[in-house]
Amino acid sequence: MPDDRPSTDADLETIGGIETIGALGEQAVLARILPRLQPGDSALLGAGDDAAVIAAPDGRFVVTCDMMVHGPDFRLAWSTPFELGWKAAATNLTDVAAMGARPTALVVAIAAPPNLAVAVLEGIADGLREGLASLAPGAGVVGGDLSASSVLTITVTAFGDLEGRSAVTRSGARVGDVLAHAGVRGDAAQGLRLLFAEGVDASGEPDPERAAALRARHPRLIAAQLAPEPPVGAGVAAAEAGATAMLDVSDGLARDARRLAEASGVGLDFDGAALGADVRLALAGAEDHGLLATFPAGAPVPAPFEVIGRVVEDAGELRVDGAPIAADGWDPYSGWDGRAG
Amino acid sequence: MPDDRPSTDADLETIGGIETIGALGEQAVLARILPRLQPGDSALLGAGDDAAVIAAPDGRFVVTCDMMVHGPDFRLAWSTPFELGWKAAATNLTDVAAMGARPTALVVAIAAPPNLAVAVLEGIADGLREGLASLAPGAGVVGGDLSASSVLTITVTAFGDLEGRSAVTRSGARVGDVLAHAGVRGDAAQGLRLLFAEGVDASGEPDPERAAALRARHPRLIAAQLAPEPPVGAGVAAAEAGATAMLDVSDGLARDARRLAEASGVGLDFDGAALGADVRLALAGAEDHGLLATFPAGAPVPAPFEVIGRVVEDAGELRVDGAPIAADGWDPYSGWDGRAG
Repeated sequence: MPDDRPSTDADLETIGGIETIGALGEQAVLARILPRLQPGDSALLGAGDDAAVIAAPDGRFVVTCDMMVHGPDFRLAWSTPFELGWKAAATNLTDVAAMGARPTALVVAIAAPPNLAVAVLEGIADGLREGLASLAPGAGVVGGDLSASSVLTITVTAFGDLEGRSAVTRSGARVGDVLAHAGVRGDAAQGLRLLFAEGVDASGEPDPERAAALRARHPRLIAAQLAPEPPVGAGVAAAEAGATAMLDVSDGLARDARRLAEASGVGLDFDGAALGADVRLALAGAEDHGLLATFPAGAPVPAPFEVIGRVVEDAGELRVDGAPIAADGWDPYSGWDGRAG
Repeated sequence: MPDDRPSTDADLETIGGIETIGALGEQAVLARILPRLQPGDSALLGAGDDAAVIAAPDGRFVVTCDMMVHGPDFRLAWSTPFELGWKAAATNLTDVAAMGARPTALVVAIAAPPNLAVAVLEGIADGLREGLASLAPGAGVVGGDLSASSVLTITVTAFGDLEGRSAVTRSGARVGDVLAHAGVRGDAAQGLRLLFAEGVDASGEPDPERAAALRARHPRLIAAQLAPEPPVGAGVAAAEAGATAMLDVSDGLARDARRLAEASGVGLDFDGAALGADVRLALAGAEDHGLLATFPAGAPVPAPFEVIGRVVEDAGELRVDGAPIAADGWDPYSGWDGRAG
């Protein structure tokens, strides 16, 4: 929406840097970002036209979409721009993988304050590129959008190819199947707990220097939160092994397991010993972005999946070693205090 | 990102209403919105899993993405929620059409303040549904994401089917082609000018009552800005008629024509008489979301396209009746004053 009124920086969040995106303008910013990205093997026509064209060789494509908003979803005082791009790629790629699909491409829409340093967008682009190269080789960024907003907001839409297979949904688990998980359990939540406890200043605001000190002391847990490495390739492996149901564990193992149980009309009984020393953390910790899947009993469970339980009757019920448990997880509206500091 | 701290509404923009999305929570909000949407004819698997599955019968799909942010892109004091949904659909469908593709599906990501009335999201959903039904029958909403943000932000990603045809890009115009346009020229800009001039209170802030009065006096111009009806079906018609190049006119006819001219390495000479009484308005007015296309000389130009000029030499040059003109249009960073009032 064009605005005839004189420009002012009032009310905009200043994040620093000399070369701002507002001073450069949209075309110059795109010229700085696009060379950092690869369109990938599936792009028949990449960025630069009204729309991109992507190959969908089996006549279908998988699509998922996820927004990351400064404040509730990330803080620039904690995450580097590279980590933001990496995480935006990783979380969406995992959703594609959870359908049993091979990721092919992303489109990325970013809304940013005009006084944001262009280096932040360059860092996000670098993180997207490297996240794709590491987690889904061959997939690329085929297009996107740049908008202005007082709140840095990143929306990624990701695509995948089912390569002729059926999609693996949440609803196919059958009583007697084994329950298996690929990825870390609780690390991302531990990292976040550390950031909120020790990565803040005296007033509780995220603090870059304290976060840097935390990284040095707890590199694995902080990285699990800020730049997760989900087992994207395990999605196709699970589908090829005959997985009956699968989903991405983003809101906590218990909450997401209950979704699978409800969609399939079954119960799930976790093996407490398989969940590690802190069962509650493994069940409640959000944002690990592992894959939870069910496989027919007796079928080989592909690496890196580990068997953590079995599918039982009692539709929608969750149990640990036979004892019922309550769900626990993260809601985007009730879980955010409105702060972006 | 979960946050252990107690919840507060500080810093959140209050938009009104009793039943807020924060009070309802994500699942209940989805249960209110999803029944208002149709997945459409191309959805093989719709919302409710980690990803949707969409048909791509010709082995490719077209994809485009556009963000709308409260402040620079719309104001709730001027637009109804229904209009926001309609416009979000319309602008993205036009980008799909501009490739010569038939729109098949959308995914919609919305970030909203927890104290936003759920009725606003319901209205957006209704506008998306009706915009699709009117502009691209058979296309639907296959999925999306809900996030929290202090700034209402809508990201739509749209898909289309080329039905075996080549994509119509910006780069295929040839000297001697005719230049044609489908859609209104300048109406959206006139509507916006009226809103900024007369739809504001004494301090310059958007005012709902003044905007309502404007609607009564100038229904066509205000609707062109707030709920445009772009000629989406004309995109396929142009491709079938052999269009050599095409793009969506979102930033103004002159600015977008220059993009086509530069991509094709040609010049464009507008016929001043064909542009109407106010040539400058027709060339500069943004957000009309018409389609600009070139057709081989002598080929029939399909309705509702009107011939408005011809393709000439002089790469990248724009002329009106042979006289050079400067480009003019809208940049998202330099064109916004940072206000969202």
